[in-house]
Amino acid sequence: MSATDTTTPVNEAAVLQPGGSFYYENREVPTIQSDRDVIVKVIATGLCGSDVHYWQHGRIGRYVVEKPLILGHESTGIVVSCGPNVQGLAAGDRVAMEPGAACNSCDFCRSGRYNLCRSMSFAATPPIDGTLCTYYRVPAECCFKLPDHISLRDGALVEPLSVAVHACRLAGDLQNRKAIVFGAGPVGLLCCAVARALGAATVVIVDIVTSRLEVATKHGATHTYQMSSESPEENAKALLEVAGLGDGADVVLDATGAEPCVNCGLHAVGPGGTFVQVGLGRPNVSIPLGQVCDKEVIVKGSFRYGPGDFSLAVGLLQANRVNLEGLVTNEYSFSQVEEAFKNVANRVGIKSVIYGPGVDAATANSI
Amino acid sequence: MSATDTTTPVNEAAVLQPGGSFYYENREVPTIQSDRDVIVKVIATGLCGSDVHYWQHGRIGRYVVEKPLILGHESTGIVVSCGPNVQGLAAGDRVAMEPGAACNSCDFCRSGRYNLCRSMSFAATPPIDGTLCTYYRVPAECCFKLPDHISLRDGALVEPLSVAVHACRLAGDLQNRKAIVFGAGPVGLLCCAVARALGAATVVIVDIVTSRLEVATKHGATHTYQMSSESPEENAKALLEVAGLGDGADVVLDATGAEPCVNCGLHAVGPGGTFVQVGLGRPNVSIPLGQVCDKEVIVKGSFRYGPGDFSLAVGLLQANRVNLEGLVTNEYSFSQVEEAFKNVANRVGIKSVIYGPGVDAATANSI
Amino acid sequence: MSATDTTTPVNEAAVLQPGGSFYYENREVPTIQSDRDVIVKVIATGLCGSDVHYWQHGRIGRYVVEKPLILGHESTGIVVSCGPNVQGLAAGDRVAMEPGAACNSCDFCRSGRYNLCRSMSFAATPPIDGTLCTYYRVPAECCFKLPDHISLRDGALVEPLSVAVHACRLAGDLQNRKAIVFGAGPVGLLCCAVARALGAATVVIVDIVTSRLEVATKHGATHTYQMSSESPEENAKALLEVAGLGDGADVVLDATGAEPCVNCGLHAVGPGGTFVQVGLGRPNVSIPLGQVCDKEVIVKGSFRYGPGDFSLAVGLLQANRVNLEGLVTNEYSFSQVEEAFKNVANRVGIKSVIYGPGVDAATANSI
Amino acid sequence: MSATDTTTPVNEAAVLQPGGSFYYENREVPTIQSDRDVIVKVIATGLCGSDVHYWQHGRIGRYVVEKPLILGHESTGIVVSCGPNVQGLAAGDRVAMEPGAACNSCDFCRSGRYNLCRSMSFAATPPIDGTLCTYYRVPAECCFKLPDHISLRDGALVEPLSVAVHACRLAGDLQNRKAIVFGAGPVGLLCCAVARALGAATVVIVDIVTSRLEVATKHGATHTYQMSSESPEENAKALLEVAGLGDGADVVLDATGAEPCVNCGLHAVGPGGTFVQVGLGRPNVSIPLGQVCDKEVIVKGSFRYGPGDFSLAVGLLQANRVNLEGLVTNEYSFSQVEEAFKNVANRVGIKSVIYGPGVDAATANSI
Repeated sequence: MSATDTTTPVNEAAVLQPGGSFYYENREVPTIQSDRDVIVKVIATGLCGSDVHYWQHGRIGRYVVEKPLILGHESTGIVVSCGPNVQGLAAGDRVAMEPGAACNSCDFCRSGRYNLCRSMSFAATPPIDGTLCTYYRVPAECCFKLPDHISLRDGALVEPLSVAVHACRLAGDLQNRKAIVFGAGPVGLLCCAVARALGAATVVIVDIVTSRLEVATKHGATHTYQMSSESPEENAKALLEVAGLGDGADVVLDATGAEPCVNCGLHAVGPGGTFVQVGLGRPNVSIPLGQVCDKEVIVKGSFRYGPGDFSLAVGLLQANRVNLEGLVTNEYSFSQVEEAFKNVANRVGIKSVIYGPGVDAATANSI
Repeated sequence: MSATDTTTPVNEAAVLQPGGSFYYENREVPTIQSDRDVIVKVIATGLCGSDVHYWQHGRIGRYVVEKPLILGHESTGIVVSCGPNVQGLAAGDRVAMEPGAACNSCDFCRSGRYNLCRSMSFAATPPIDGTLCTYYRVPAECCFKLPDHISLRDGALVEPLSVAVHACRLAGDLQNRKAIVFGAGPVGLLCCAVARALGAATVVIVDIVTSRLEVATKHGATHTYQMSSESPEENAKALLEVAGLGDGADVVLDATGAEPCVNCGLHAVGPGGTFVQVGLGRPNVSIPLGQVCDKEVIVKGSFRYGPGDFSLAVGLLQANRVNLEGLVTNEYSFSQVEEAFKNVANRVGIKSVIYGPGVDAATANSI
Repeated sequence: MSATDTTTPVNEAAVLQPGGSFYYENREVPTIQSDRDVIVKVIATGLCGSDVHYWQHGRIGRYVVEKPLILGHESTGIVVSCGPNVQGLAAGDRVAMEPGAACNSCDFCRSGRYNLCRSMSFAATPPIDGTLCTYYRVPAECCFKLPDHISLRDGALVEPLSVAVHACRLAGDLQNRKAIVFGAGPVGLLCCAVARALGAATVVIVDIVTSRLEVATKHGATHTYQMSSESPEENAKALLEVAGLGDGADVVLDATGAEPCVNCGLHAVGPGGTFVQVGLGRPNVSIPLGQVCDKEVIVKGSFRYGPGDFSLAVGLLQANRVNLEGLVTNEYSFSQVEEAFKNVANRVGIKSVIYGPGVDAATANSI
Repeated sequence: MSATDTTTPVNEAAVLQPGGSFYYENREVPTIQSDRDVIVKVIATGLCGSDVHYWQHGRIGRYVVEKPLILGHESTGIVVSCGPNVQGLAAGDRVAMEPGAACNSCDFCRSGRYNLCRSMSFAATPPIDGTLCTYYRVPAECCFKLPDHISLRDGALVEPLSVAVHACRLAGDLQNRKAIVFGAGPVGLLCCAVARALGAATVVIVDIVTSRLEVATKHGATHTYQMSSESPEENAKALLEVAGLGDGADVVLDATGAEPCVNCGLHAVGPGGTFVQVGLGRPNVSIPLGQVCDKEVIVKGSFRYGPGDFSLAVGLLQANRVNLEGLVTNEYSFSQVEEAFKNVANRVGIKSVIYGPGVDAATANSI
């Protein structure tokens, strides 16, 4: 496939059996189909809550694992080949992949909201296979070159970083603003980092686990607040006092979906503030709608990422405005997929990464 | 007070006793205090749900009727006198009054969001007296001249019309859009009218009372939908089908605050759509937060009105783009305040208007 | 081509010879290339200033007629066949065509600004052939079904109407606003109509020819102003007085590109106002930049149309919010291409339309 | 005036005589007039091009020095006393003053655009006296507490910093964007610093003086470009190449008003880009209007500052996101007003500051 690789390429994949166990098999090696296609050799894939959810529950909402499915969508890799109409990319380029190929021609796509495309092919969302395999095909617009100082391992965080970028941009102007982030998991931590990079003067991280709060202070949080068992109102009051936020925050980002957090956040946001639900919304959650009205709060759902999000994520890394150090805590070889999923399900570490087939740590960590 | 009125002016007021009954008394006649003050002789005052709520329950949220309070805030009148720095207004002018005097100097006011002003003096919100009296003082920026063809009686609808204008503007661009309005009371009907005037191609009115739905078709609604006892999802599905809205509405305006409507609305709004809660939010309401995320819905609380809303409301009337005909269904003299409140509480008619002290129907209805 | 047409289809075209004369020849009949392609039989094509410019001058800016070119891009037609992935369109549908096929995958396209796409294939812009032929191929997203009451002849105005829609949307919120439109040619007239439909309370049309001003009053203009030979400042002052615009207009749309108009407009726009240059900008024009600063004017260039513009244009027609009556003043059969161009060059009538090959008036005018 | 000051306060002022020379005289000591007034003892005042212009030419546009005028409007000071309704400020506070008192009640003020207020009282704009005096009265909303690490001397830069903040905010989202700033004077340098602080990835500073370009690299500029005598097109091409900006910049800020710079900027801005004229616009400037159209450039005039600008300026200093070091190059005692003006007119140094009457360097420089 590459000029120096004389062996016949094999596309090894870790496949989720409907019902729950993984098996390995060789799949067809993807080839250039459209003139803007790019074939990428996968080096590292971060595990996401949704991957684990499909493994454990076989479905997320209307998306059901009905036949064998390859999981994984937070991936980096090395470009192997490009279609004839691909510009600015070449074999050997180190890239992060945006894992959703939009139709590009519907009204949503044409008006700059491709994440709402009804025909989106999104990796690891049934029935579309994901990236836990040797080679993956993506359109050129989904390849983003990594900055030189970011390893392919850490680059697996570009996808969740883009989730954070999308959510923070939905929050509007963050310059000199007071922000609260609920949830100190990977996405919450990255929301802290991005909110701060985008200018927030204050970023309060909220969680129930103190060890996680401490990590957040290394990634942009200026204050920490540990949720208590008090009511959301009481927690909101205490939080505002601890962080000196006065009448309320300008922006709240919830990366938990938990009802107490959503409620605390809507009590803690100030008049005219914005509350962003960063994915994870439960089917039904009780909210203080009266507060939303009286304070003219804007509540926004954030879904994946859209135009410019991956690009800004990479730009923030390029300029050292976001620091990924310490976020990838666990690394697994491709043969350890099941172990990796088990550990993530048990909330081991912050972000776990699985190397591509045949990839070793040295390759994944080199920059 | 006016050049031709040689009698000593008296300021008669209908006062709500904490606990619930009304009494009449003469209050001090208001005078020009600041150089931009305007004294208005009140001609007609519409009754609002909040007036009735204070009468029946003695409080709304943190606002409590702790001492005698004059209710009423949807008023028109005739300018009696103006401070020396008032421009564009003169004694004799027929005006609608915006019933909130903001501080004009806080950050909210200075940044164009005066409805969020923490020092707002809002008529008929304890402890600020309302307009059910002979004379009322407002700053010049709160007086809006009525178009010649709008009677002082119908002009009492300018305030709720401004509520609808504010909500519809929060909904964003309405040109050629598909909108749903929940609740065919005065505000909901005016939301229909405004949404249509602002360009909506489709406006579906939703209520449980069929007679109200019919009224809506004369005020901008293009389709009607009667809520059934089915689930919000089922109602949403049926509604979209009836009105041919396909994947969902672009905009939903809820003027009910009722949980089934909020839920139906959030199921019926399409990807990328906007849901506006037009006041009335209950303290806690369960919402399908997962839908908000997956569809990237924007949920906005709408609180009263802000810059340009009264002005646009009057402009829509001036240009005959909104028609008030048939909306004022009940008129009362000033001596009938208690009767008026009782009837409104019993949901008699659409909008009830109380004339000012000494005002007769001929004056209120003349144009 | 159609089920009932048993003859071999022929694609007759009117071709512009570099240097300036037209000739007729049969070109290859276009076929479905991509699964979203649509083949349209052209019924009517409006002539645009740019078509005439290419004929007379052989170039517009960097676009040069270096080899034979088919002109025409304001066209309607009847769908002949659709690719397998086309939804919502079928043979026999009466459509207006958006004449630019964007790449749909560059950053401009993906972020909702496809009119800035560097790879745009735009009809009748060298070297891309236009629509003065029998059959034309467009992607499905460029076909817009005509309302039943709009003839295929009048539908040729959907393209310039979309230019007006785009410009008016760039002007921002027009509700209750005071607008001025310079130039009472087809685009200026349609800007009047659209500005009014989108809510402008006042629309002043400005031209030097009084007969054109009168036409404008049937298409949305509320006031007319005939430019005099005075300075732009004097003209601005007189214009504002005539139309009662006080301190200035909220919005100015210039559809002339003429320096005196641009200057008059920038003097007539009020503080915080918006000035839109609707195409036609000359390479260099002197403007009162001090005015732009002191009044914080926003000056926007408007280039063709983007997401939602054709759709809103058709929606405005559908809802009878824009009236095309009287705008198509001259009709030509396909054999009269040269005569049509000559007359348009001599400024005969408002909008001239050329029927497609073999199309007669009855077909073009039927609804 | 202060508790410890037992002498009778004197308000010494440096007054500009119409015609051009300065004289000193004692003016009435300002007192609290409204309950939100604040009296500030002036410590340092930066000199601005407009101050020098009034001195040299006696007018700027419609503003004419017809009677003796106190100049100066870039000032810091120490709060002496506060009206009864002032919150969050107390005697002794070190503040930067926003030098414009808006009416706060007109439509511009109420809608968040107070810099367009027609009744604005702006310091040192005839006939409103400026701050080159001992005591100055401002409304509370115009006082901004300085961060502890910013001296009262450097704080005089908060005003031009707010000019830069306003201009950069008008430029829209700067995250990861490519920006060009024309003019390396105080405002241009601060535009570089702010553009970078607000996220610009690339900031190219353009000037004709190389020494100034070097200063800019310490204040946010990532690239420098020295304008040559070539055409604006050629300069634009060279600039884009030097800075690796490809198809053009996302944002251009012009702080020169010079025709060659404006033209170079409009050629260098890319499709969909924004050009901000930061004050200084000449009455008439020739611009490439065709470029504005073809690229759909947005050209904005920037006038002073509005809601939140001083606040963000101070926030950027507080968080060390903007560094003022080295920008105040020349300091003068109050007795040296004429000398200071002469030197500024001769373009000595970057920013010159005049201490208030009786203020010494130690006080002005202490933090």
